[in-house]
Amino acid sequence: MNNFGKNLNISIFGESHCLAIGVILSGLKPGIKLDLDFIQDELNRRKPGGELSSKRREDDKFLIKSGVVDGITTGAPIMFEILNLDTKASDYEPLKNIMRPSHSDYSAYIKYNGFNDVRGGGHFSARITAPLVIVGAICKQMLLQEDIIIAGNITQVGQVVTKRFSNDDLNSEVLFALTKKALPNLSNKEDEIIKEINHYQSAGDSIGGTIEIAAINLPVGIGAPFFNSLESHLSQLVFSIPGVKGIEFGLGFEYASSCGSDVNDQMQYRDNNVELLTNNNGGITGGITNGAPLVMQVVLKPTASILKVQKTINVKTKENVEFQIEGRHDPCIVPRAIVILESVVAICVYDLLIELRKGV
Amino acid sequence: MNNFGKNLNISIFGESHCLAIGVILSGLKPGIKLDLDFIQDELNRRKPGGELSSKRREDDKFLIKSGVVDGITTGAPIMFEILNLDTKASDYEPLKNIMRPSHSDYSAYIKYNGFNDVRGGGHFSARITAPLVIVGAICKQMLLQEDIIIAGNITQVGQVVTKRFSNDDLNSEVLFALTKKALPNLSNKEDEIIKEINHYQSAGDSIGGTIEIAAINLPVGIGAPFFNSLESHLSQLVFSIPGVKGIEFGLGFEYASSCGSDVNDQMQYRDNNVELLTNNNGGITGGITNGAPLVMQVVLKPTASILKVQKTINVKTKENVEFQIEGRHDPCIVPRAIVILESVVAICVYDLLIELRKGV
Amino acid sequence: MNNFGKNLNISIFGESHCLAIGVILSGLKPGIKLDLDFIQDELNRRKPGGELSSKRREDDKFLIKSGVVDGITTGAPIMFEILNLDTKASDYEPLKNIMRPSHSDYSAYIKYNGFNDVRGGGHFSARITAPLVIVGAICKQMLLQEDIIIAGNITQVGQVVTKRFSNDDLNSEVLFALTKKALPNLSNKEDEIIKEINHYQSAGDSIGGTIEIAAINLPVGIGAPFFNSLESHLSQLVFSIPGVKGIEFGLGFEYASSCGSDVNDQMQYRDNNVELLTNNNGGITGGITNGAPLVMQVVLKPTASILKVQKTINVKTKENVEFQIEGRHDPCIVPRAIVILESVVAICVYDLLIELRKGV
Amino acid sequence: MNNFGKNLNISIFGESHCLAIGVILSGLKPGIKLDLDFIQDELNRRKPGGELSSKRREDDKFLIKSGVVDGITTGAPIMFEILNLDTKASDYEPLKNIMRPSHSDYSAYIKYNGFNDVRGGGHFSARITAPLVIVGAICKQMLLQEDIIIAGNITQVGQVVTKRFSNDDLNSEVLFALTKKALPNLSNKEDEIIKEINHYQSAGDSIGGTIEIAAINLPVGIGAPFFNSLESHLSQLVFSIPGVKGIEFGLGFEYASSCGSDVNDQMQYRDNNVELLTNNNGGITGGITNGAPLVMQVVLKPTASILKVQKTINVKTKENVEFQIEGRHDPCIVPRAIVILESVVAICVYDLLIELRKGV
Repeated sequence: MNNFGKNLNISIFGESHCLAIGVILSGLKPGIKLDLDFIQDELNRRKPGGELSSKRREDDKFLIKSGVVDGITTGAPIMFEILNLDTKASDYEPLKNIMRPSHSDYSAYIKYNGFNDVRGGGHFSARITAPLVIVGAICKQMLLQEDIIIAGNITQVGQVVTKRFSNDDLNSEVLFALTKKALPNLSNKEDEIIKEINHYQSAGDSIGGTIEIAAINLPVGIGAPFFNSLESHLSQLVFSIPGVKGIEFGLGFEYASSCGSDVNDQMQYRDNNVELLTNNNGGITGGITNGAPLVMQVVLKPTASILKVQKTINVKTKENVEFQIEGRHDPCIVPRAIVILESVVAICVYDLLIELRKGV
Repeated sequence: MNNFGKNLNISIFGESHCLAIGVILSGLKPGIKLDLDFIQDELNRRKPGGELSSKRREDDKFLIKSGVVDGITTGAPIMFEILNLDTKASDYEPLKNIMRPSHSDYSAYIKYNGFNDVRGGGHFSARITAPLVIVGAICKQMLLQEDIIIAGNITQVGQVVTKRFSNDDLNSEVLFALTKKALPNLSNKEDEIIKEINHYQSAGDSIGGTIEIAAINLPVGIGAPFFNSLESHLSQLVFSIPGVKGIEFGLGFEYASSCGSDVNDQMQYRDNNVELLTNNNGGITGGITNGAPLVMQVVLKPTASILKVQKTINVKTKENVEFQIEGRHDPCIVPRAIVILESVVAICVYDLLIELRKGV
Repeated sequence: MNNFGKNLNISIFGESHCLAIGVILSGLKPGIKLDLDFIQDELNRRKPGGELSSKRREDDKFLIKSGVVDGITTGAPIMFEILNLDTKASDYEPLKNIMRPSHSDYSAYIKYNGFNDVRGGGHFSARITAPLVIVGAICKQMLLQEDIIIAGNITQVGQVVTKRFSNDDLNSEVLFALTKKALPNLSNKEDEIIKEINHYQSAGDSIGGTIEIAAINLPVGIGAPFFNSLESHLSQLVFSIPGVKGIEFGLGFEYASSCGSDVNDQMQYRDNNVELLTNNNGGITGGITNGAPLVMQVVLKPTASILKVQKTINVKTKENVEFQIEGRHDPCIVPRAIVILESVVAICVYDLLIELRKGV
Repeated sequence: MNNFGKNLNISIFGESHCLAIGVILSGLKPGIKLDLDFIQDELNRRKPGGELSSKRREDDKFLIKSGVVDGITTGAPIMFEILNLDTKASDYEPLKNIMRPSHSDYSAYIKYNGFNDVRGGGHFSARITAPLVIVGAICKQMLLQEDIIIAGNITQVGQVVTKRFSNDDLNSEVLFALTKKALPNLSNKEDEIIKEINHYQSAGDSIGGTIEIAAINLPVGIGAPFFNSLESHLSQLVFSIPGVKGIEFGLGFEYASSCGSDVNDQMQYRDNNVELLTNNNGGITGGITNGAPLVMQVVLKPTASILKVQKTINVKTKENVEFQIEGRHDPCIVPRAIVILESVVAICVYDLLIELRKGV
């Protein structure tokens, strides 16, 4: 089903090269004065056209078609639309029958009997995440009213590894500062990251990476034991982002070699507040927030589109071919994925926070 | 919402120490002769009472209360029930107000205003996964009719690391053999695994681990681009299993240091069949199966219940306490989690396979 | 999908002659002391065995299998079960291949390829509404805390027509009194109703009727403009009750011959409260409660099971047959349907009231 | 939730006077060549501007923003948009605080804290049904491939009562002919209907009516016993249409005075085909189609907007007022509602037909 959310509800539409992409958002309270500038700022963080990204030129201005009067939500469904302006369908014409390796092409060709829009990956394009950024910006605005702040931290790009979130970083000052940076990381390794990406870009290649997302000041109680555990809800949406191939919470895969006595999060009262002595669970126990910061890490594969000769198939001629992708592509998804990940975390958290507020 | 599935639908109930646990399964075709022995076999793989697991004695026999006549599905909802027989609620009485570290206790205490059933973790107990094993067994039976086979492989327990799935392992012979073993792994390290678990058990401690799950012979086309990507669907259900803290598909977190030219899954025709030269994506591209085997890996944290003194809080007296958990606990979740993971993969795959069969 | 509810969620199971019927209810707040006697009282209102109903003997005692400790909800899913005790499957054996006219038999035979449980109508039996009565009783209990009262009024049985709700009747005194009666109606025509039903019963025939349901003290704002209008939500569940063939709100079908100037519900302030001068809309405008009492009417067809020779088909022999139903059947659904209808109204109203309380 | 459909899924957006209205439709098969002319024809049947309808001028041309390439569905979500061109918001300014009787105004004012868009009824406007007509047209196109035909029949407008569907009318010839008429009815009473509507229009008043919808050639098996009975599914969507206040299937409210021996639908084989001797159930038994034509009737209340002085309240000044609505309004909803009702029936039937095709 093309919708997501238990209390909020989003339905998306669009393809890389159709007329427009967008989202219908319902379930948002009436009377909210939307921070339109903030939405645009967030979209700009995702926008293509920078040094390290695709040269596609999209201003990514959004239109509100319904549900908002004088900038204030009415309680009716809100439709946000972004026009596709710089579509170069011709880039894709020769590839109509050639399945780009590690792309959705072959899966989609079979599933949709060859009718899927192949231009720019069609509905599989990461461009379709722009509407998620719009919704995420609104959720961030709502969460900020409760002092909940979400930020991303690049923890790895290729061989460049940076500092992961420690408890000392999990405060509003550090997190806000991260959201202002183009390549947010806690080790000031922007130059190394750029150099790493440029290295692969200049070789017509691409590189993967990891991003941590943290959220602070979450109340205890967001989530559920089964099916809609906060981890379940987050990962359902995170795995809708093209290129994500793994997610872990807190210690994540390090747990495999850990013993309980080392990693259990012991607790204490301090000044009548409950605090955890450690946060190895990444803020979630039993599928539900426990008052510690949410910390999760996601891995992104290297962009599948590389400017090198690759072996693949032509489904029309049924022949093996060697071919080279042309066009405009990000050499690394990581920089633009940060705001997308922050957005989907904001959506999931706010969605389940509404649930918590109704007391069930 | 307490239900899962797009085409199948499951709703679960039960707590560790209430009268019974179970599941309502609907959406299953009429006319299926259920393999009741196989269901019981699968339940037995998860059953407590073995050397390496909790000493709780449950025969875990299941009852079918509705939806089946003469062993054949009628098309009506099927209710499966397992009685709780060996409940020792007294074990938990002293801990009613003491929040066990790294357990759901504190999250649940706040979320449910102290009304949650604390005996054995209540509805958060891993015991509630038994009904998922029943449903998984049925889905496995259905999938096997299309030659789809699912098996688990222990890849790590503490310091013991075993061989991961390679393409050579991904055939019916190897996979079936794995499902027959108590501690399935491709390196014949059963003894080392037992030794590792015993080491921690004898110290009153616990240990984490990782499990790979593979599924072969999946048709191309299972999944969707957004919200219900196969990765989304799988991870939603996988993160309902207590103790899971991470999931990755194919190369997973190794993608972070990989470049596209090394890891893109190139393709070719061989004997008119499409094949991938590598399977780094773990069988899923664009959220949809691509014909290669599904390969995913999950990390399980060490059991939170350890027989050591830990610091925590008493929510009634509002005091910091040091306490030691009593009771019967698995020192390592991994051995019993294998069949649970296989089951949830079977449920997700069969659920979306029905979707594929209807042609949308 | 076998579930209902936006905030509450129910999944049902059971067939007329299987081991048990029941429901899983989730989404109910923790800490509610369930009024178990009231639940049983409500079940007794629906129970077979009376003068005017089927002679099947079921005590319809319910079991709570999970989700409740010491009579208080824990926040976990609650499973309610009612055992089937008086099953006479032999009554149905001869009819396995004979499609009873106006029953679900033929629809179900085709849909389920002949695998559906034919004993007593299987999952299509009105017996499956007993779990809805349990859930409805709980919802009534919750609604009563906000002074919301729901009651049914028999408005027609065959030729006996009684008084419909007028504004003067829509107070707690009248409504409570109605819920205490076996054949609630505002014209004291119990004797006539009994006589009418007896007339058809003694002839081996059956008779239809109508029931009004009213609910008072609903806050303004329950419902939504599209898809989940209160009328939509109510009718979705009402048409799950076997035998219902129509529903109307307020004036309902009388609107067809009415002009706006006669039937528009004009409004005024009286003592600073908003009141409607009339309530032709039955308390709902724009799909949302408007503060006036909810008034709706439902029609029930005569029981399809009659003790007369009827023409139908044998699907096995492919022959036309004349046959006569045996067994134990209600001559009129109306008396037992009242509490069922009250229950489903309670479920729908409480479900959407939770939504209203969360402010979206 | 702002979405509908089990297999298809629709989400709508728009308000009477915002920039645009529309719908996202997902779940539609790839490779369908949409009949764009037919969609426009159907929209034109609903379009305002005729003799008997609002004088608002909208060309109601639709745009396809995504999901379709060269007129053929791609399998991705399809966004249909209709621009609002003739918006006269000034008509509504004076009424911002005055609650129009029998409209959604007061319900919405309270529910949305006064933030709802009041211009033209905002999201409650019947204009929002235009996107449903687009989706309905597509479903009709798909259903026609299986010879399923849906048509409406005006059965009453005020004092004008026309012939209801009899079995003789339920063939493709009659039904197609009905869909070509502006005021379809089986008694050739177009003139009387026009006269009746004109009578009320010239008096600044409005009038109600009833419409029958029939669908032929439905396969046996569409629907389900509970929650998603075909009656449940249809009525959920039908009650999303502004002005609908009642629905009945087959004999409907006439069942109240009927006995089983008179109205049970007896069956027989004729030429090896199963046929019902009567169709009092309107083609649905047990919530599932039984092979007979679907016949249902809906009542529409008189348009709430009348050009007469009415008593109501000013929520700002908290005063009682007498006021008269200005603006452009239909004197009778019936003529334009026919295609809307046909459309929602087509959507529901096709949605559940997909379910039937997948065999569950």
